[in-house]
Amino acid sequence: MKLLRVGPAGGERPALLEDDGTLRDLSSVVPDVDGRLLADRAALERVRASVGARILPVLDPVGLRTGPPVARIGKIVGVGVNYRDLAAETRVPIPAEPVLFLKAPDTVVGPDDTVLVPYGGEKTDWEVELAVVIGRTARLLDTDEEALAAVAGYTVAHDVTERAFQFERGGSWDKGKNCETFTPLGPWLVTPDEIADPQALSLRLWVNDTLMQDGTTADQIFPVAHVVRYVSRFMTLYPGDVITTGTPAGSAVGRPEPKPFLRAGDVVELEVEGLGRQRQELKDARPGG
Amino acid sequence: MKLLRVGPAGGERPALLEDDGTLRDLSSVVPDVDGRLLADRAALERVRASVGARILPVLDPVGLRTGPPVARIGKIVGVGVNYRDLAAETRVPIPAEPVLFLKAPDTVVGPDDTVLVPYGGEKTDWEVELAVVIGRTARLLDTDEEALAAVAGYTVAHDVTERAFQFERGGSWDKGKNCETFTPLGPWLVTPDEIADPQALSLRLWVNDTLMQDGTTADQIFPVAHVVRYVSRFMTLYPGDVITTGTPAGSAVGRPEPKPFLRAGDVVELEVEGLGRQRQELKDARPGG
Repeated sequence: MKLLRVGPAGGERPALLEDDGTLRDLSSVVPDVDGRLLADRAALERVRASVGARILPVLDPVGLRTGPPVARIGKIVGVGVNYRDLAAETRVPIPAEPVLFLKAPDTVVGPDDTVLVPYGGEKTDWEVELAVVIGRTARLLDTDEEALAAVAGYTVAHDVTERAFQFERGGSWDKGKNCETFTPLGPWLVTPDEIADPQALSLRLWVNDTLMQDGTTADQIFPVAHVVRYVSRFMTLYPGDVITTGTPAGSAVGRPEPKPFLRAGDVVELEVEGLGRQRQELKDARPGG
Repeated sequence: MKLLRVGPAGGERPALLEDDGTLRDLSSVVPDVDGRLLADRAALERVRASVGARILPVLDPVGLRTGPPVARIGKIVGVGVNYRDLAAETRVPIPAEPVLFLKAPDTVVGPDDTVLVPYGGEKTDWEVELAVVIGRTARLLDTDEEALAAVAGYTVAHDVTERAFQFERGGSWDKGKNCETFTPLGPWLVTPDEIADPQALSLRLWVNDTLMQDGTTADQIFPVAHVVRYVSRFMTLYPGDVITTGTPAGSAVGRPEPKPFLRAGDVVELEVEGLGRQRQELKDARPGG
C-alpha cells in the first residue's frame, strides 16, 4: 500500500496511490496519515479494504503538490556513517555501533518542495536515504523480529546537511542537520508488505542530471532491524517517529576539491527503489546571501 | 504572569498562578498553553486581563498534578558547557561558540513526575537549567533585542543525562539526552515582565536533600540573548520551541570517584529563582534493571 498526503503545505489530505497509478482521496476513510493512524490496526484495515474497491474519489495529480507522507512526526533519529562505501570514501572507521543524531520535525518538507541553502552555509550537501516510519511504541526491543514489527513503512528521505555547520562550528552534528527545509520526505509511505527485503534496495541521487550517488541498502553497516532495535535501547520510539538510516557514498564532502556543494539554482533528484522519487530546486534562505 | 498546565498526563488544562498563590482555571479563556497561544498577542492579552479579576474558577492544588507548562513543543535545543564554573570543574575549554544538541519533545514530563533510570544506564546524572520558551518565529536574528523579543517566557528544565550513553557509545551527545522522562519541565511558564534580568538568577539542585548545584545565570558563557540569536542562525525557531541554556557546576560527572550517579529511589529537587521548584523520584525503566 502506498499512502501519501497531497495539497498545499499545512493543508494536505490523505491519499492512496493504487498500483495502476490512480490517485484516490482517503479523506472519507481516515483524517490523516500520522502516528495515530499507523498505530491503529482497525483504521489501517479500513484503508486496505478500500484498495481496488474503486469507491473513493479519484484525484487529478496534475498541479497537485505532494506533502510529506506523515503528519505530526514526533522525532527524527538520523544514523551517520552507515554504509561501507561511505566509510571507505571518507576514510572514516567503520563504527562499532550506530552513530545517532536528531533532526527536528520542523525541517520536514514535501518531496518536491524548495530546499533552502542556509545563510552563511558554504558547504550544503546531499544525502539520499532510506527512511523508516514507526508504527508502534518501541522500547528496549530484544529481537530483529520485534524491530521489523514496529516498522509501519518506508519512505525516501533527503538528509540535507550543511557540512560547515556540522563539522566546523563545535558541538554535535545537529547544527548542520537542522536548517529549515533540510528533510524532504516522501513521496509515499510504502507498507512493509510491498518491500520484500529492505536490505536490497537501490538508492540514487542526481544533481543537475548528473548521477552522484548510486548505492544499495545491502551495503548498510547496520541493517534496518538492527538500527530500530539499537535506537529503542536509548530512546523510546513512538508511532509517527522517523529514522533516517544513513547515506551511501557520493555526497559532495567525499569528492575531490573543489567539492561541488549545492548552490541556489541547482536541482537535486533522488529515489529509493520501490519508494518513488523526489525533486528539489535549491534557493538561498536569504536572497542575495 | 505565571502560566501552567494541571491535570493528568495528556489531559492537562491551562491555569494561572496569581501572586497570592491562588490557582485559577484558564480553560474558559484559552484552550491550552502552547506555541499557538504564545504567538497570539490578543489571546495573551485576554489571559492578562483575567489576572486579578477574580472571575475565573479557583482550582484546589491539593492532589493536582502539574504537567509541563507548554504543550506540543516543536523542538528542544540544548546548550552544552555554558557555565564558566562547569568548564573549570570538568576541565573543558571555554567553547568559542555555543555547543548545541537536541532533545526530543517526547522526553518532556511534568516537574514532579517520575524520572526513569534507563536500562543499561550506569551514569544517570542531573542538570538544573534555565529554559527559554519561544513566542515568535525567529530566523537569522541580528540583535540581542530581537532575540529577547522572541522569548515568550522562562521555566525550569531538568536536563537529565546518561553520561555513559553521552560519552561512551560513539556519535553525538543526543544518545545520552533522549531517554524517556529525561526532560522534566516547569512548574510555570513565567513571562519576561516578571524576570528583571535573566542573567541574575540563582539555580540550585539537591539530591536526597544534599545541595549539589548552586549556581547563577550570571556565570553563563553565552547569555540568553546570545544563545537565542545564535541558534536562529542555524535553525528556525518557532513558537513553542524550547531552549535549555546549560547547567552550572555540580553534576555527578564533575565530582571525584566514586561519582554519585542517580539510582532508583533517589529524590532530586531543583529550582531556578523566580521560576519555581521541581521534585522527582527516580525509578528503574525496567524494574530489576
